[in-house]
Amino acid sequence: MNSLQSNSINRQVTLAARPNGEPKPSDFKLVETAIPTISQGQVLLRTVYLSLDPYMRGRMSDAESYADPVAINGVMVGGSVCRVEQTLNDNFKQGDWVVAFGGWQDYCVSDGVDLLKLPEQLAQKSYALGILGMPGLTAYMGLMDIGQPKEGETVVVAAATGAVGSLVGQIAKLNGCHVVGIAGGAEKCDYAVNQLGFDACVDHKSAGLNDALKQACPNGIDVYFENVGGAVFDAVLPLLNTKARVPLCGLISQYNATSLPDGPDRMGALMGRLLVKRIKMQGFIVFDDYGHRYSEFSDAMSNWLQQGQIKYKEHLVQGIENSADAFIGLLKGENFGKLVVQVGSENLAG
Amino acid sequence: MNSLQSNSINRQVTLAARPNGEPKPSDFKLVETAIPTISQGQVLLRTVYLSLDPYMRGRMSDAESYADPVAINGVMVGGSVCRVEQTLNDNFKQGDWVVAFGGWQDYCVSDGVDLLKLPEQLAQKSYALGILGMPGLTAYMGLMDIGQPKEGETVVVAAATGAVGSLVGQIAKLNGCHVVGIAGGAEKCDYAVNQLGFDACVDHKSAGLNDALKQACPNGIDVYFENVGGAVFDAVLPLLNTKARVPLCGLISQYNATSLPDGPDRMGALMGRLLVKRIKMQGFIVFDDYGHRYSEFSDAMSNWLQQGQIKYKEHLVQGIENSADAFIGLLKGENFGKLVVQVGSENLAG
Repeated sequence: MNSLQSNSINRQVTLAARPNGEPKPSDFKLVETAIPTISQGQVLLRTVYLSLDPYMRGRMSDAESYADPVAINGVMVGGSVCRVEQTLNDNFKQGDWVVAFGGWQDYCVSDGVDLLKLPEQLAQKSYALGILGMPGLTAYMGLMDIGQPKEGETVVVAAATGAVGSLVGQIAKLNGCHVVGIAGGAEKCDYAVNQLGFDACVDHKSAGLNDALKQACPNGIDVYFENVGGAVFDAVLPLLNTKARVPLCGLISQYNATSLPDGPDRMGALMGRLLVKRIKMQGFIVFDDYGHRYSEFSDAMSNWLQQGQIKYKEHLVQGIENSADAFIGLLKGENFGKLVVQVGSENLAG
Repeated sequence: MNSLQSNSINRQVTLAARPNGEPKPSDFKLVETAIPTISQGQVLLRTVYLSLDPYMRGRMSDAESYADPVAINGVMVGGSVCRVEQTLNDNFKQGDWVVAFGGWQDYCVSDGVDLLKLPEQLAQKSYALGILGMPGLTAYMGLMDIGQPKEGETVVVAAATGAVGSLVGQIAKLNGCHVVGIAGGAEKCDYAVNQLGFDACVDHKSAGLNDALKQACPNGIDVYFENVGGAVFDAVLPLLNTKARVPLCGLISQYNATSLPDGPDRMGALMGRLLVKRIKMQGFIVFDDYGHRYSEFSDAMSNWLQQGQIKYKEHLVQGIENSADAFIGLLKGENFGKLVVQVGSENLAG
């Protein structure tokens, strides 16, 4: 628990500078401002849990992307689980739990339109940022709608113990697939196999990734859920079967890159491979493409959770002042499970 | 008409050597063998028209691909329109017209399983190798099934006057799209706009391809039917809209490449673009993926042809001895329209 959240000051983490390569602590700044006041129709939200996710690296850059960048000195964006502290909106009462896109700060104001009320039966409120939230929907839709795994097929996912990867692999297992994870380090690989039930997990930090992956996929790869890129994709590409599907969810290995890698230029070779093997590669952005199917996902995932068919691990960091370091570590794979910052107490302030 | 086809000799064009880069005349060899004799259940086919298509370049290499390579000294493969000269198969009578995969030769033997009888009402038999055959099915299925063009969207296709490209653009026009072709030279561009009805056609041989394409696509590109690759794709990529679709049909610009282009390596950058723009890129091989939907295509295309809603241009070369040169020219874009070799007379031998 973080004792520093108060009812008089709004702490915010702002973007101090656009990172050049890996973000540094000095690219962020912790500032204190007044708690905003609300007008008719609005609610004041207090952040309890803040989600940290790789896509945020993209928002720190001003390269063209699917969403506007965070402005310099602007508050870092992010999904959060909040409680309603004050309300001038009839749809919300004090104490309500909501999912918001509140950003890295103690307090924010909303007109209620973009808020999602948490189901009362949700015991672990932070799950709304993970298994039952954006990462869960990402895993479910990317795998099921684009990947379309069939029983007996081989599904490979990297960042296998991360928020998205761990769910992709488990959902694929529930669909009868041979599931191979890729993760960094023996501990994570052990967890993927022995706790999550993957058929195998290859350690990308040990030598011989290509050979190890080939051995773990004796029948090639039918679905590769891409959230990493780089050397991992290099190992995957030659193993992709005819008519393989590659949902493109993220490329975390590239997010800190400041220039293109040295040649030769393999862009045309990738296209040649997609052509000859009749592979489908498709990018998606989960809320834009699949937000309307949230309830379908939520029903399936809640059911699996209740039945104990899916396991989920959180990596909880205490205190908004530790957000920047935690995020920098996330991009290096230092987290183990879904990274969430506890910004404030679950109890109502007062 | 080619006077050299006889009823005593089978001329064949064989693969003399695997090309290193662009195929040379010496990579092919014209040989004379005996006309094969048939057994019970077989038919002897005489080639009248031979189709020349870019995919054949792939069959000349022994790099891993979706089909086995032609063996050294093996007969070059290819689709053909043939007449049944002799028959020991009850399903065929002498004089029947069929589409076969007979290769670059005067005569071949079939057990009938892989033959498609031509509809009697087909006046121009060679059309079975183009608008009503593999290129037509390729254009139709790649565009409609993978590209899924919607009214008002912008569709771009390269090799715009080629067998496939000319049909892609015309089908897209029939679907209410803004259609932009890319072709080599003013004459082809003029044909695409004034004869095929494209909204614009950009000459990739003139300077400023990128700017010209951008100007021709003021609303970006929603469907890019890829059959070229290389510099043309480089011009297309920055213009692809969110949720664009890229059916990957061919990469003719790469077929003669002997090594990867110099760096930087843009493979990851391509994937990043697909991710951020949520683009679908999908390779397909027409008969493997869509052979079962031939009649759906054939009905639509025959109807458009009869109504005069689709135009089709053939580039007819006389004589099997000119096949190699014609094929070498095809890879350089020297043909204008669907390239077909007339190997023999339409009349029954006798």
